[in-house]
Amino acid sequence: VHHVPTVEQNMKELGIVLPEPVPVKGRYQKVVVHNGIAYVSGALATLPDPLRVAYAGVVGADLTLEEARESARVALLGILSSLAEALGGLDRVERFLHLGGYVNVAPGFTKVNHVIGGASELIDSLFGSDALAARTSIGVAELPDGASVVLDAIVAVSA
Amino acid sequence: VHHVPTVEQNMKELGIVLPEPVPVKGRYQKVVVHNGIAYVSGALATLPDPLRVAYAGVVGADLTLEEARESARVALLGILSSLAEALGGLDRVERFLHLGGYVNVAPGFTKVNHVIGGASELIDSLFGSDALAARTSIGVAELPDGASVVLDAIVAVSA
Amino acid sequence: VHHVPTVEQNMKELGIVLPEPVPVKGRYQKVVVHNGIAYVSGALATLPDPLRVAYAGVVGADLTLEEARESARVALLGILSSLAEALGGLDRVERFLHLGGYVNVAPGFTKVNHVIGGASELIDSLFGSDALAARTSIGVAELPDGASVVLDAIVAVSA
Repeated sequence: VHHVPTVEQNMKELGIVLPEPVPVKGRYQKVVVHNGIAYVSGALATLPDPLRVAYAGVVGADLTLEEARESARVALLGILSSLAEALGGLDRVERFLHLGGYVNVAPGFTKVNHVIGGASELIDSLFGSDALAARTSIGVAELPDGASVVLDAIVAVSA
Repeated sequence: VHHVPTVEQNMKELGIVLPEPVPVKGRYQKVVVHNGIAYVSGALATLPDPLRVAYAGVVGADLTLEEARESARVALLGILSSLAEALGGLDRVERFLHLGGYVNVAPGFTKVNHVIGGASELIDSLFGSDALAARTSIGVAELPDGASVVLDAIVAVSA
Repeated sequence: VHHVPTVEQNMKELGIVLPEPVPVKGRYQKVVVHNGIAYVSGALATLPDPLRVAYAGVVGADLTLEEARESARVALLGILSSLAEALGGLDRVERFLHLGGYVNVAPGFTKVNHVIGGASELIDSLFGSDALAARTSIGVAELPDGASVVLDAIVAVSA
């Protein structure tokens, strides 16, 4: 018999370890679950020990497209870390509904959708194509802590 | 007896033909429907044959307010094209819940809500005032493929 | 017996009076309620008599962090004013699901999450920590009417 691999098995296969959950610095929640929908706060790429922003800077000036795609990929790990903390793991994730991608860009850098592709492709690898989100990618002026990419998400979760 | 005109009848009356659905270039979905809600990916104005971005450029520098309003209007047709493809037509559209409008602006151009009005007014013309969305209009730094306007939407749909 | 204070009592205690609802200038709705979820249009800080934008300008250039936090706080009052008008008061507000915060920033101003904190802290004071939202804070290029902060919200409401 063929077993569909779980997200955890896919992560192990890809050598992916979720980052430690970041602390909440302010009066908000990283994830709010209501009627089977999880609203996930904006997340950015981090590095541990000590916890700090990874891939900070302006895409098209300080960072290349490839570095920005990696920033988006690691920011998605932040989204998954928040979801795993809120849901007690990732098994309850049914599918992504919407992914918002915000890219800190230099004037003239228009490949913002390619940047967010770094996150979308990881969703595909881990959860499969049936879990893919609708998506909006925009280039913005500044992001918290000088991050190059912020992602937020709306996710369908099971009880 | 008086019949409420359908969206298709309204479109015919206004001489509006939906653009061909754009191909998905990446790992996302143009529309995700879940529990009666459609999440629609960011869409921009296009021209066909060959498919290309229409009204590219910076509003307040390359494009006037009127051109930007037309860009928003045509971007909404992109949203409708995606919905029609996903739902097998527009009859299942109950109402718009939220419309996000992102405008690629020159410094000092603050009439971003007037730009997005080009899309809102078309929703009104086609679906009627009971279908109007809550709306957020912001001026951004860059948009995919140099578009002047991107729209995304959350839409209530019937089964 | 101990009574949990209502939002109205908390507002009275804090000396907060909701601003008059702003008129709708265009083809959108300030609040759309669907299946227990309220989608609230982007709101900015206003002053009355005559109605005008408060705290207009660019954060990090025209406005300090503290002024921007006050702008976010007053913009949240705009969100609450819209909700109260749509729901016949604030008693039907169950909790905030998502708060979007858009800050008109000067280059190099990265404390956008601290700015939006001015709104989040007011949600906490009025509705309590169980009502706190997931949150996305981004720095943008321009906002309607030159506002320094725009907020939008998705809110769970009871019947």
